[in-house]
Amino acid sequence: MRALQYLEIGQPPRVVEIDTPEPGPGQIRLKVTAAGVCHSDEFVMSLPEEAYTFGIPLTLGHEGAGTVDAVGEGVENLDLGTSVAVYGPWGCGRCHACARGAENSCPYAVELGIAPPGLGAPGAMAEYLIVDDVRHLVPLGDLDPVRNVSLTDAGLTPYHAIRTSMPKLVAGSTAVVIGTGGLGHVAIQMLRALTGAQVIALDVNEEKLALAKEVGAHEAILSDEAAAEAVRGLTGGLGATAVFDFVGAPPTVAIAAASVAIEGDVQLVGIGGGTAAVGFGVTPYDASFRAPYWGTRSELIEVFDMARRDQVHVEIETYSLDEAPKAYERLHAGQVRGRAVVLPNG
Amino acid sequence: MRALQYLEIGQPPRVVEIDTPEPGPGQIRLKVTAAGVCHSDEFVMSLPEEAYTFGIPLTLGHEGAGTVDAVGEGVENLDLGTSVAVYGPWGCGRCHACARGAENSCPYAVELGIAPPGLGAPGAMAEYLIVDDVRHLVPLGDLDPVRNVSLTDAGLTPYHAIRTSMPKLVAGSTAVVIGTGGLGHVAIQMLRALTGAQVIALDVNEEKLALAKEVGAHEAILSDEAAAEAVRGLTGGLGATAVFDFVGAPPTVAIAAASVAIEGDVQLVGIGGGTAAVGFGVTPYDASFRAPYWGTRSELIEVFDMARRDQVHVEIETYSLDEAPKAYERLHAGQVRGRAVVLPNG
Amino acid sequence: MRALQYLEIGQPPRVVEIDTPEPGPGQIRLKVTAAGVCHSDEFVMSLPEEAYTFGIPLTLGHEGAGTVDAVGEGVENLDLGTSVAVYGPWGCGRCHACARGAENSCPYAVELGIAPPGLGAPGAMAEYLIVDDVRHLVPLGDLDPVRNVSLTDAGLTPYHAIRTSMPKLVAGSTAVVIGTGGLGHVAIQMLRALTGAQVIALDVNEEKLALAKEVGAHEAILSDEAAAEAVRGLTGGLGATAVFDFVGAPPTVAIAAASVAIEGDVQLVGIGGGTAAVGFGVTPYDASFRAPYWGTRSELIEVFDMARRDQVHVEIETYSLDEAPKAYERLHAGQVRGRAVVLPNG
Amino acid sequence: MRALQYLEIGQPPRVVEIDTPEPGPGQIRLKVTAAGVCHSDEFVMSLPEEAYTFGIPLTLGHEGAGTVDAVGEGVENLDLGTSVAVYGPWGCGRCHACARGAENSCPYAVELGIAPPGLGAPGAMAEYLIVDDVRHLVPLGDLDPVRNVSLTDAGLTPYHAIRTSMPKLVAGSTAVVIGTGGLGHVAIQMLRALTGAQVIALDVNEEKLALAKEVGAHEAILSDEAAAEAVRGLTGGLGATAVFDFVGAPPTVAIAAASVAIEGDVQLVGIGGGTAAVGFGVTPYDASFRAPYWGTRSELIEVFDMARRDQVHVEIETYSLDEAPKAYERLHAGQVRGRAVVLPNG
Repeated sequence: MRALQYLEIGQPPRVVEIDTPEPGPGQIRLKVTAAGVCHSDEFVMSLPEEAYTFGIPLTLGHEGAGTVDAVGEGVENLDLGTSVAVYGPWGCGRCHACARGAENSCPYAVELGIAPPGLGAPGAMAEYLIVDDVRHLVPLGDLDPVRNVSLTDAGLTPYHAIRTSMPKLVAGSTAVVIGTGGLGHVAIQMLRALTGAQVIALDVNEEKLALAKEVGAHEAILSDEAAAEAVRGLTGGLGATAVFDFVGAPPTVAIAAASVAIEGDVQLVGIGGGTAAVGFGVTPYDASFRAPYWGTRSELIEVFDMARRDQVHVEIETYSLDEAPKAYERLHAGQVRGRAVVLPNG
Repeated sequence: MRALQYLEIGQPPRVVEIDTPEPGPGQIRLKVTAAGVCHSDEFVMSLPEEAYTFGIPLTLGHEGAGTVDAVGEGVENLDLGTSVAVYGPWGCGRCHACARGAENSCPYAVELGIAPPGLGAPGAMAEYLIVDDVRHLVPLGDLDPVRNVSLTDAGLTPYHAIRTSMPKLVAGSTAVVIGTGGLGHVAIQMLRALTGAQVIALDVNEEKLALAKEVGAHEAILSDEAAAEAVRGLTGGLGATAVFDFVGAPPTVAIAAASVAIEGDVQLVGIGGGTAAVGFGVTPYDASFRAPYWGTRSELIEVFDMARRDQVHVEIETYSLDEAPKAYERLHAGQVRGRAVVLPNG
Repeated sequence: MRALQYLEIGQPPRVVEIDTPEPGPGQIRLKVTAAGVCHSDEFVMSLPEEAYTFGIPLTLGHEGAGTVDAVGEGVENLDLGTSVAVYGPWGCGRCHACARGAENSCPYAVELGIAPPGLGAPGAMAEYLIVDDVRHLVPLGDLDPVRNVSLTDAGLTPYHAIRTSMPKLVAGSTAVVIGTGGLGHVAIQMLRALTGAQVIALDVNEEKLALAKEVGAHEAILSDEAAAEAVRGLTGGLGATAVFDFVGAPPTVAIAAASVAIEGDVQLVGIGGGTAAVGFGVTPYDASFRAPYWGTRSELIEVFDMARRDQVHVEIETYSLDEAPKAYERLHAGQVRGRAVVLPNG
Repeated sequence: MRALQYLEIGQPPRVVEIDTPEPGPGQIRLKVTAAGVCHSDEFVMSLPEEAYTFGIPLTLGHEGAGTVDAVGEGVENLDLGTSVAVYGPWGCGRCHACARGAENSCPYAVELGIAPPGLGAPGAMAEYLIVDDVRHLVPLGDLDPVRNVSLTDAGLTPYHAIRTSMPKLVAGSTAVVIGTGGLGHVAIQMLRALTGAQVIALDVNEEKLALAKEVGAHEAILSDEAAAEAVRGLTGGLGATAVFDFVGAPPTVAIAAASVAIEGDVQLVGIGGGTAAVGFGVTPYDASFRAPYWGTRSELIEVFDMARRDQVHVEIETYSLDEAPKAYERLHAGQVRGRAVVLPNG
């Protein structure tokens, strides 16, 4: 089969021909319908050799959807042809975190050599994908796998961050979304659908702010040095109840820290290398700062429930597997509107 | 001044002339702008003498809004003319519940002789109203007091019930609202504004169901013996995540109990005399049943925040103080659409 | 192998010789070390034919511990000889509840024919036990399987109930435990170890109250008609923050409902056939009533963590497999102190 | 009357004679029984003139207890002679935070010129103290005001931090307490009384570690560069569920950040000037960092409930008002074991 692989540190990924894998006991082989292109792939491929831990060659694609093509021994109650999406942050399956379905928090995965597809295990940018256990599949039913595949990360990651802050996002609250790209434009929709919060979007240019407004932001303002003051102006001086930073670079983290209210939440989601200095007298009293990671199994089910109710949609551009390298180029250049999706069997 | 008083057990209330009250130290006198007409007034006036505990004569009106007219000694930072609404469930102010602002849960109010205005203390159906403490006022700012006075009960009560269930009302959830009248039609709006739940409204006739749809219910069905089955049909057989029964009569409570999902919530808000039999093997596993009462001080602030954001509005009919008895008659006859509001100085 | 089976409705269970089972793909065969004797077995065997749904013959034993004896294809990272306990409330493994590890709340298990071992599937009162999936095993390490096997139900069930109420069991709170037998005497220890609550135990005779005191109850009082009043006396008139009824019979449920405080919790755990009538004006404002069921996978891990810290221990009596029918007789006669445990290979 | 005042920036406080204050409407005058000596007083008096915002002269003492000596107009239901403690973090009383009793989070206090006694308003290190409102009093009943006065800050502050983390401190969890002085030695007791967590105490010398063990720490280790590794060793490599840093200096904050588990909490309570750098890939996934401040009104009630149950006690040294300057000297020198208490009328 054909697969998009990262073959050499620092070089662009290439489409190559490799053996089609067979599912072992308990495993499932999917015929891949769609695979999402994500900034974190780009981040991974930007790492120098000494920091790169994902193995070579690496078949890319940690957002995947497909149809059940073959099952290993012991897999029951799963019809061939079933349309499914893949829960990506695979854990050990047995520890306390995994027992709650929070495999994204499994502390044992690394030492056991368990890695998400596309981030260690072979990913979804291939004609076929092996999923290690039926618990990592979420049935899609009638949902369009192409339009929704990105929800497995670009939906689940913001949802996980938002869900943690939902107890604070009661009536009268305000949420700030920094970065209105792949994850941010989904976060805006989720905040509108799930909370009564005033939603303020921040980004670097008018085009992105226009998208933010289009998907539901009440306010959209430039993420410049005046941004935090603007947020305070829109909140009676109090600051935001929750700030979701999907960029995570030093300037955006600074805005996040300066925008949050007493008792508020700052969620640092983006991999931009910024950090917030948290301390007594430095950050607002009782304001919480955290860097969330991906999401849980039940949260992914909830995200697809939102899609079924038309509460969230992802803006997409589609590419064939051969065009996949170009998708990464456009992503790198900041040219993708919403999310790029590769159709390996398209 | 003139006031609407309940003067004789079993007889309709009458407008009478009484002395205008003076505020004592720490108290505030409001010139009443608006007072809401509530089913619980009717309930109170339906009680036989042996069950009636609210005192005679009783100036009615537990939903009140007005402008600050005079203040007693020690009241500071409160300008005359300020437009305010009254938080009604007055407590002792010192116990654990009151220290959280949950004066609706104060266990000492009764023994201390503290009662809400209109339910023991003189109420808002009068030209002037004495409020015992500045903590019981919520500034309205530019909000229309006539359109919003009912939120102090018809908004706060459903909000309190909904807020308790909000941790369960995540993406993919379903809420059922039984009774789409004064409280129910507000609850539907709140559920739509604050959660991503599918909202199913139940009531006894098509006219009420039409109102439910108008204010945002996704589904509106008759509250007959097929209702619980219909709810299960709309939830893939699982039942509702939360059921809010604003009627509380035996048939509606039966529907509520039959509609709730495993791990769900049943909130029995209405004073209809029904009870749910809760027990192992009888009600769904881990489903919670409770009878909430009114709401907390901070919740009332949140409710007015919703009004400011146009997330909730109350359908109203207005009456002069002289017409107030007629308002109760129409309420009794089930003819009020939404909420009746009396304008004592109108 | 030998197994204790329920062979005929209404007759006592008998020890019989049956085939030793082989593990299929993904399954594990345990050599059973210990199996707990539970009141719910007795309940099951008391059901008339028309209400009995567990299949005949039924190998009893839903509390099980053993050593890994053989594994089916696809089971990895599990050494033969590993000492494990069995998580009993098996669910479908794929739905929203199961994705959270709350298989006890799986709404699909029944229709899929999935049942707990000993309550449909062959149970632990046999020399060997088949467990359907590695996710249903909790490693015991150095913990004594005989002393701790009962924690899989008699520990997990009260823990699940307590954990739901823990947000209310803050400093200054009071917990009431009704019934100080198998589950209740564990609940008392858990409440003492995990909360700062005053713990009041209720039971029918002085011997049981003595055990309650011994395992940590602050107060132990007879569960008679004066009990609720006594609870109010011990709580400044307010009532209990949480009441755990491990009997669940009409008189104890009545005590539970009469003992709970405003905003409190009543957890109806016992299968005694009682129900509480919940409604406005009938039960205290905002008090919550629920019938919990067993517990989740992560909760079971937490329960064994408690055992490792000596925070909970089960009083036990041990029996050989041949003596198992006698254990049920003694249980029925109310003669078991704590929990009876059968050692099928002992 | 005599009072201990801070009269000149950079100089030690002195006992001076000033007028005895009269209570205005709504106010209460206490005859002070006891006033606690706190590190934050020392911090305040260490500030250079440009950073000092508390007014001169400043009567010290933000931990106060006394008996009701006189009441202003409008204060009802409060007997002269009643023994009370003072809730210190006074807020506006009307905003959303204050309506929840979280006056410690009031965003309006500063602009309204409202300050805690001893930190702007005249404090408790005087023969008499004016309390602005009855809501700021907590009745002590039979509790010894001298032994318990410090709970108003040294009890409330750690309790507030712990309470926020309690949902994570379930069975099997681990809590780390850094700094076992005034607040830390109370925190250890609270964690033991209120949770099932393993409690690990860290401090700089063996004497302090001995106190930690004495008040209940399971483990006590030196807070050196090996400390975080030691915490991981005591938690199976996972790190601590919650870390409470009562020092807050750069080295302790570094230990805190290095000790916390995935999904854990770091509470930076101490005013030591340190900050934690929080960001993706830098801090453990989903670990939360915050700097809490003092506590809420209902939390203070809960703290005194703990004292009533002997769940917490403060080690104290007592001083007369004339000796108060010496108490601050000993505090500065790190010579106070537990907490110093001044008896202004002693």
